[in-house]
Amino acid sequence: MDKDLLETWLNAIAAGELTPAEALEKLADLPYQDLGFAKVDFHRKLRTGNAEVIYCPGKKPEQVAAIFQALAGQTRNVMATRANLRIYRKVKAVLSDACYFDQARIIALIRDQSRTAGKIGVISAGTADQRIAEEAAITAEILGSAVCRIYDVGVAGIHRLFSQKAVIDSCRVLIVVAGMEGALASVVGGLVDKPIIAVPTSVGYGANFKGLAPLLSMLNACASGITVVNIDNGFGAGVAAHRINLLGE
Amino acid sequence: MDKDLLETWLNAIAAGELTPAEALEKLADLPYQDLGFAKVDFHRKLRTGNAEVIYCPGKKPEQVAAIFQALAGQTRNVMATRANLRIYRKVKAVLSDACYFDQARIIALIRDQSRTAGKIGVISAGTADQRIAEEAAITAEILGSAVCRIYDVGVAGIHRLFSQKAVIDSCRVLIVVAGMEGALASVVGGLVDKPIIAVPTSVGYGANFKGLAPLLSMLNACASGITVVNIDNGFGAGVAAHRINLLGE
Amino acid sequence: MDKDLLETWLNAIAAGELTPAEALEKLADLPYQDLGFAKVDFHRKLRTGNAEVIYCPGKKPEQVAAIFQALAGQTRNVMATRANLRIYRKVKAVLSDACYFDQARIIALIRDQSRTAGKIGVISAGTADQRIAEEAAITAEILGSAVCRIYDVGVAGIHRLFSQKAVIDSCRVLIVVAGMEGALASVVGGLVDKPIIAVPTSVGYGANFKGLAPLLSMLNACASGITVVNIDNGFGAGVAAHRINLLGE
Amino acid sequence: MDKDLLETWLNAIAAGELTPAEALEKLADLPYQDLGFAKVDFHRKLRTGNAEVIYCPGKKPEQVAAIFQALAGQTRNVMATRANLRIYRKVKAVLSDACYFDQARIIALIRDQSRTAGKIGVISAGTADQRIAEEAAITAEILGSAVCRIYDVGVAGIHRLFSQKAVIDSCRVLIVVAGMEGALASVVGGLVDKPIIAVPTSVGYGANFKGLAPLLSMLNACASGITVVNIDNGFGAGVAAHRINLLGE
Amino acid sequence: MDKDLLETWLNAIAAGELTPAEALEKLADLPYQDLGFAKVDFHRKLRTGNAEVIYCPGKKPEQVAAIFQALAGQTRNVMATRANLRIYRKVKAVLSDACYFDQARIIALIRDQSRTAGKIGVISAGTADQRIAEEAAITAEILGSAVCRIYDVGVAGIHRLFSQKAVIDSCRVLIVVAGMEGALASVVGGLVDKPIIAVPTSVGYGANFKGLAPLLSMLNACASGITVVNIDNGFGAGVAAHRINLLGE
Amino acid sequence: MDKDLLETWLNAIAAGELTPAEALEKLADLPYQDLGFAKVDFHRKLRTGNAEVIYCPGKKPEQVAAIFQALAGQTRNVMATRANLRIYRKVKAVLSDACYFDQARIIALIRDQSRTAGKIGVISAGTADQRIAEEAAITAEILGSAVCRIYDVGVAGIHRLFSQKAVIDSCRVLIVVAGMEGALASVVGGLVDKPIIAVPTSVGYGANFKGLAPLLSMLNACASGITVVNIDNGFGAGVAAHRINLLGE
Amino acid sequence: MDKDLLETWLNAIAAGELTPAEALEKLADLPYQDLGFAKVDFHRKLRTGNAEVIYCPGKKPEQVAAIFQALAGQTRNVMATRANLRIYRKVKAVLSDACYFDQARIIALIRDQSRTAGKIGVISAGTADQRIAEEAAITAEILGSAVCRIYDVGVAGIHRLFSQKAVIDSCRVLIVVAGMEGALASVVGGLVDKPIIAVPTSVGYGANFKGLAPLLSMLNACASGITVVNIDNGFGAGVAAHRINLLGE
Amino acid sequence: MDKDLLETWLNAIAAGELTPAEALEKLADLPYQDLGFAKVDFHRKLRTGNAEVIYCPGKKPEQVAAIFQALAGQTRNVMATRANLRIYRKVKAVLSDACYFDQARIIALIRDQSRTAGKIGVISAGTADQRIAEEAAITAEILGSAVCRIYDVGVAGIHRLFSQKAVIDSCRVLIVVAGMEGALASVVGGLVDKPIIAVPTSVGYGANFKGLAPLLSMLNACASGITVVNIDNGFGAGVAAHRINLLGE
Repeated sequence: MDKDLLETWLNAIAAGELTPAEALEKLADLPYQDLGFAKVDFHRKLRTGNAEVIYCPGKKPEQVAAIFQALAGQTRNVMATRANLRIYRKVKAVLSDACYFDQARIIALIRDQSRTAGKIGVISAGTADQRIAEEAAITAEILGSAVCRIYDVGVAGIHRLFSQKAVIDSCRVLIVVAGMEGALASVVGGLVDKPIIAVPTSVGYGANFKGLAPLLSMLNACASGITVVNIDNGFGAGVAAHRINLLGE
Repeated sequence: MDKDLLETWLNAIAAGELTPAEALEKLADLPYQDLGFAKVDFHRKLRTGNAEVIYCPGKKPEQVAAIFQALAGQTRNVMATRANLRIYRKVKAVLSDACYFDQARIIALIRDQSRTAGKIGVISAGTADQRIAEEAAITAEILGSAVCRIYDVGVAGIHRLFSQKAVIDSCRVLIVVAGMEGALASVVGGLVDKPIIAVPTSVGYGANFKGLAPLLSMLNACASGITVVNIDNGFGAGVAAHRINLLGE
Repeated sequence: MDKDLLETWLNAIAAGELTPAEALEKLADLPYQDLGFAKVDFHRKLRTGNAEVIYCPGKKPEQVAAIFQALAGQTRNVMATRANLRIYRKVKAVLSDACYFDQARIIALIRDQSRTAGKIGVISAGTADQRIAEEAAITAEILGSAVCRIYDVGVAGIHRLFSQKAVIDSCRVLIVVAGMEGALASVVGGLVDKPIIAVPTSVGYGANFKGLAPLLSMLNACASGITVVNIDNGFGAGVAAHRINLLGE
Repeated sequence: MDKDLLETWLNAIAAGELTPAEALEKLADLPYQDLGFAKVDFHRKLRTGNAEVIYCPGKKPEQVAAIFQALAGQTRNVMATRANLRIYRKVKAVLSDACYFDQARIIALIRDQSRTAGKIGVISAGTADQRIAEEAAITAEILGSAVCRIYDVGVAGIHRLFSQKAVIDSCRVLIVVAGMEGALASVVGGLVDKPIIAVPTSVGYGANFKGLAPLLSMLNACASGITVVNIDNGFGAGVAAHRINLLGE
Repeated sequence: MDKDLLETWLNAIAAGELTPAEALEKLADLPYQDLGFAKVDFHRKLRTGNAEVIYCPGKKPEQVAAIFQALAGQTRNVMATRANLRIYRKVKAVLSDACYFDQARIIALIRDQSRTAGKIGVISAGTADQRIAEEAAITAEILGSAVCRIYDVGVAGIHRLFSQKAVIDSCRVLIVVAGMEGALASVVGGLVDKPIIAVPTSVGYGANFKGLAPLLSMLNACASGITVVNIDNGFGAGVAAHRINLLGE
Repeated sequence: MDKDLLETWLNAIAAGELTPAEALEKLADLPYQDLGFAKVDFHRKLRTGNAEVIYCPGKKPEQVAAIFQALAGQTRNVMATRANLRIYRKVKAVLSDACYFDQARIIALIRDQSRTAGKIGVISAGTADQRIAEEAAITAEILGSAVCRIYDVGVAGIHRLFSQKAVIDSCRVLIVVAGMEGALASVVGGLVDKPIIAVPTSVGYGANFKGLAPLLSMLNACASGITVVNIDNGFGAGVAAHRINLLGE
Repeated sequence: MDKDLLETWLNAIAAGELTPAEALEKLADLPYQDLGFAKVDFHRKLRTGNAEVIYCPGKKPEQVAAIFQALAGQTRNVMATRANLRIYRKVKAVLSDACYFDQARIIALIRDQSRTAGKIGVISAGTADQRIAEEAAITAEILGSAVCRIYDVGVAGIHRLFSQKAVIDSCRVLIVVAGMEGALASVVGGLVDKPIIAVPTSVGYGANFKGLAPLLSMLNACASGITVVNIDNGFGAGVAAHRINLLGE
Repeated sequence: MDKDLLETWLNAIAAGELTPAEALEKLADLPYQDLGFAKVDFHRKLRTGNAEVIYCPGKKPEQVAAIFQALAGQTRNVMATRANLRIYRKVKAVLSDACYFDQARIIALIRDQSRTAGKIGVISAGTADQRIAEEAAITAEILGSAVCRIYDVGVAGIHRLFSQKAVIDSCRVLIVVAGMEGALASVVGGLVDKPIIAVPTSVGYGANFKGLAPLLSMLNACASGITVVNIDNGFGAGVAAHRINLLGE
């Protein structure tokens, strides 16, 4: 139930077109959550900047395309995560403006290309971590944040990271993406005083246990100010960083 | 090596009191990190707002007292985490202004009581989670953030949480502290579009595995925008929230 | 060994047709379990309402078809769980009345379509959890329970759940199906005073560990009255809910 | 927000005493959850039969005593779980009618001693599992269910279990409490067609991993119709069984 | 119900002292498991050689003493495992012949001291594993097996093990007790062709995880013919070895 | 180093043909393990009865065939475990007498078909556990033990197990194969006083964790006398049971 | 920033061509890491002997080929690990001298074939462990170490290992590669006083948990002097052994 | 059997005092391992430099004192690890020269104070890790290595580590001791080309899981050349580093 409808009813009572009893009945009939629904939806839009999001796994290509098309009618930017080429082709067939970010596995319709003044720095360790870093970066960009990519600066060649210190310092919030042992988050945390979101990736083998090693590593980082998202959850990091970034606008 | 010393040397060269060769040797001898040291230290102060922090476990009461006293000479606010009464008494003996936050297990010397305009909301589930919530809240306050406590609003009585919706909406960033199954983070994440830092606590038994259950639960929260810190890490959540809060000042 | 036979023997002793020693030997020889066997079989039919069940994994399509056909001669309703289309075709070839529930992966022969007066509410979180929800729902229906489906009411959009409060209240027992962090069980547990069976699903990734996260979450649910079945065990939840539902008839 | 207040406002609009705009503002200001609050509270009492419950761990004896006294003013039966003698003495001091169930670790005030016609059967394996069995039994009794205790019938001496078959059959719902390998739940599940709630206990050592072994065992029970609660969660099993038992009254 | 009683009844029927109907009633009244009980008990005695066993944890000293005394009236040898001195004193007070094996933590009443011809070899790695080795050895001896102890022959000094080859070869079945990495079981398995029961102990630290390391090691032993019992389960190993040893008598 | 050679040398010293110093050097140079080598090989044949064994995983079909052929020249029975049809065809090409046990995944050349008088009972729970049961049974048979198969007697239909009590009692040693929750081992352990080797299988899903549930269950079995092998290790159980069985011949 | 540039500036100050203030600014502007960069690069070459290394997983064949070609212009030996034939063909197309080590899964360009005087002994347990042993051996050889392979000397046939004692004694450092239970590392550690690097492999099944069993086993080895690398990390062991081996040159 | 005895016998044969047959018998009677024993013992002394080691846990103070005294008669340096003051007092009572290293928990008798020319660098992260670092350092020193301590250089203040670069470069082999997330090992591995032994400590809380986090982190370190020992195993790291250090002497 939206505010306009409520206003219409209240005006109708004031105008004598609706008796209080009738209005009460109408209000009682309405599931009270409807009001909440509208609110949440409104919040929802704010929350993800200016985009609606579809999570692809477990949905058929046609389903994704249909939801994508529906959302495209309601909001300016739409994105689908964990998508593949097959899904993209279905979406493309109904929305020719949709584009596909291969590494990030994101299908997007980007009508609003405005960006924040403050930047989110996305730092990644190895080449293999890059697809998750891109998921975070592209997500943040679609939501409206400016993003600065600082890739391939793993701890094994720590000088490469340090040579990017000035660039890192110019960002408002940082996303650190690393697999293997995930030490990069700790090192970045020891260098700067920014909010840092650490993303463990499933890159590694053996006692890495599909990302458990960097996950535990990042949760135990002795540098304070680091928070962590799920293994390979570039999307979640992008959303969280965007929300934080917005606070500085 | 600080900037003043470097300046002195450069002036000495200009004045002919030092040959370039001698200066080069001096500079080469200096561990180049000294410069980094100063820088990092400076950052460090910024990073933790205006406080220096001591982590008590593994240190003897006298050691904590000595470090506390030393830091009190260098900075305005000093805090010691995971402290107990025995340690407090040792600190109190050398710094009579120190106070002890019992639930938060924090010893603090708070000379700078200024607070941010924006508020950090600290939401906790059960009574037993409160000590970790307090660790987060007190940490953020000592660092200089205004804090709003919303306690005892667990999912089992979900109406209590909803009745605080307006208060929650008035905060800039949220810390959600919960043990048991940690569902509170997901529910709060479904209600608001703020940056949310989830703190799993070790409250629970059996298949809770000392906080593993809420940790996994929070890392898998389907509501986006949630980031997570280590089990019982109220301090880390307080620092991270403070940094995010500062962005909005 | 049935009572009649025992009576016959005792009479034979009384009649002097059987010596006590011979009777003793006969009694010792009888596998006493035979009595149990009959009983259990009888119980078995009661237990699963009016259906016999085949678990497909590890059985060849022809084997399933043969068992299915055999059971169809003994009982009114027969079902095979975790079935695929290939198995269905084999069953269909010998029992043309068999039907296949695609999402639930259940092959069924339903001759008795009577339903209970009381309803089982099957609540599911995300789209991907639906196939397990359907396994629970179809199972309960084949056993004879009326089922009410309340799907796609995840915690991230909590208003959608609340708008179904009246429907949920009209059910006698609830099955809550959720993957990711499984918080839905806790939230439903906080809203109603029904018996609740929580089904964690393997939907998720990373630190979800194939359903471990929602399993632990549900086992630790702070709302009381919740019991849990194995990850993805929609069938087990359907059977348990049906048994509980029968108590109210 | 209650209905009367809403009616007053609508009448005031109709009477011209309140403009629609003012009313809209008032309505927006009202925390809509207030209505929910009352509802949930009402539900809450229903949910736990006729008792309010306090969970002791993490609360000081005085706190428990104070809450206990407060609840005793609102409801007929009150209970505190995981309590010890020290807490009991504090409660006893303010409520001389309170009694303490030593094995079950429950403090209770039982003014309403009515019991259901149907019985909950509480079956336990070893002597060491008995305290959790008692927690379940006492909980169910305080809530108002009749309880039938069938103790010390572990699988190692399986004949003892079978000799209680008739007693087990006379119950409406069963709680099976077992540590070690937890096989008792499977065996009971193979014998009867009742709803069964399995409670793994932390009794055992080594590869038992504090109850993990029976927990996994019970979740994987091949006998269908079994649902599981957290390790050592006798209370939760008691509540769930009572709710199920009520359906048959 | 024992065989004698049954015989008495059957004779009474034959003698006309009992009508078949009366007998049937008597038999029906008897829990049929009683027969089973007797049987199992009889088996039980055989099974554990000639001893009854009490598991102490979770029982009070007085309880143990009472059970011990009762069993002492029924069987020749009685033993209580995981006992401590306090329990022993209680038992000693009622049974002055009871003795206490300190390292093995076993209280025993040994009236039948006969031993098998074949020997069980108990091999242990380090000094700290000895208490579990003793639990196995004493158990086997009380049950009636001859035992040969080969202690302190860990893999780090592998020559000590090899120097005992002849002694090891003279045993019929082997128990290998080892903590740390548990490699001793594999090495013994590579040397002899006997049935080997491996007992992992909780001796170790860090990534030993309280016996998990040797448990996994022993389960994966590449030498075939090795079977494993629970961590620290010297008693279970003793019973199993005794049963195997009896086959060769 | 064999005894003859040693004797030769000692005689040479006595004959003055070899100085003590030279002999000492020779002795020191000899790898003392050579003696061990021969011994162990001899033991090896004894150990596996009368068969040599090849473990296929990680070996190419041609490699298996070549090793198989080589062993066929040295011993009467040869077997290859975890084999598939492709490997079998390669072996069959070089040894036309080789046969393939499909369910057991064993290729065998069986020239010696003699069997022990005593029987090994192989008991399995569900249909899906049968392939591991067959691996155990076929292994034991190739080694020379008589085997009695008792399949499909899971705990969910416990009467089927009990009806086989007499058959079970006629065996000398038992192998119990079960997946899901593995309760069958405990129940068999509660019925008989034989040595029991429990084999957990990876049959199950969700919180079964690929056999972890029955593995833990069996290790914690409260019935004593049970020992356990690795998940799905039918071969190991067969070897161990055969060795135990031999003791009774 | 290199030393020459710094010298130029200091001279310019002395010459009055640069004011101290300007110099200070220049120094502050320079990323101090540049110096570190050069150093680390130099170290890097030393570190891996005389080879550059590419880790293939997560890189496309063309990417590997391009990096390979680039490195071939800078250093004498280049290697790519975890490579397959497809990648090799791409590399071969641009560098015809490249060769492929099939078992080790390494592509290499070896222009410098010099070897150390001291040898690294690579000991492996089973046939299936050999590919990881080869990864270690080939890595060490490309880096410039002489390697001595001692394969197929598992603990189940311990005499084979002992017969190689002299060869093992002739090595300077040992790499022990073993899957299953990994006991080989302990046994070798009990025989020699060399630095030993243990490599657990993922060879095994069931409770091996993909290498967890030998990993824990090796970490808990009671023989001292053993250090461990990640599961299947032959490369890491090769590098570490080479570094240790160089110390003895 | 020592070499002297063997020589005596061979001489006796040569002298005709012993017939070859008698000698053969004597030799055959001797456990052949005795030779091995001597050898291993000899190796053992080499292996641990010039010290014998006693592991205290599981031994009584008197036992440690007795073993200590015995070893003091055979070798120059003796050490007991994981010792406490109570044990020390017992040792001190019999060996007044024994000293106690409080932090390292080592009792030592150091008669040979010679040190290697090359140094072992022991680097530790936090204050709480220092006791394990000391265990490693003291162990290496007692064995005869020169040790250089570089403490309190955690990743959170990374400049402190870098300022010690020259000192680190002067060492031959490095031991890196760190708890929390263990990132220090990776960072040191990125800076130098030395053999590095990483020691995870149990310092941390929550998702640290008593050292599991740094253990996994170190095993997955992306910088190559790092090997790992068990959690808190300072002693093992000291022994391994000493052996490596000796290669460079």
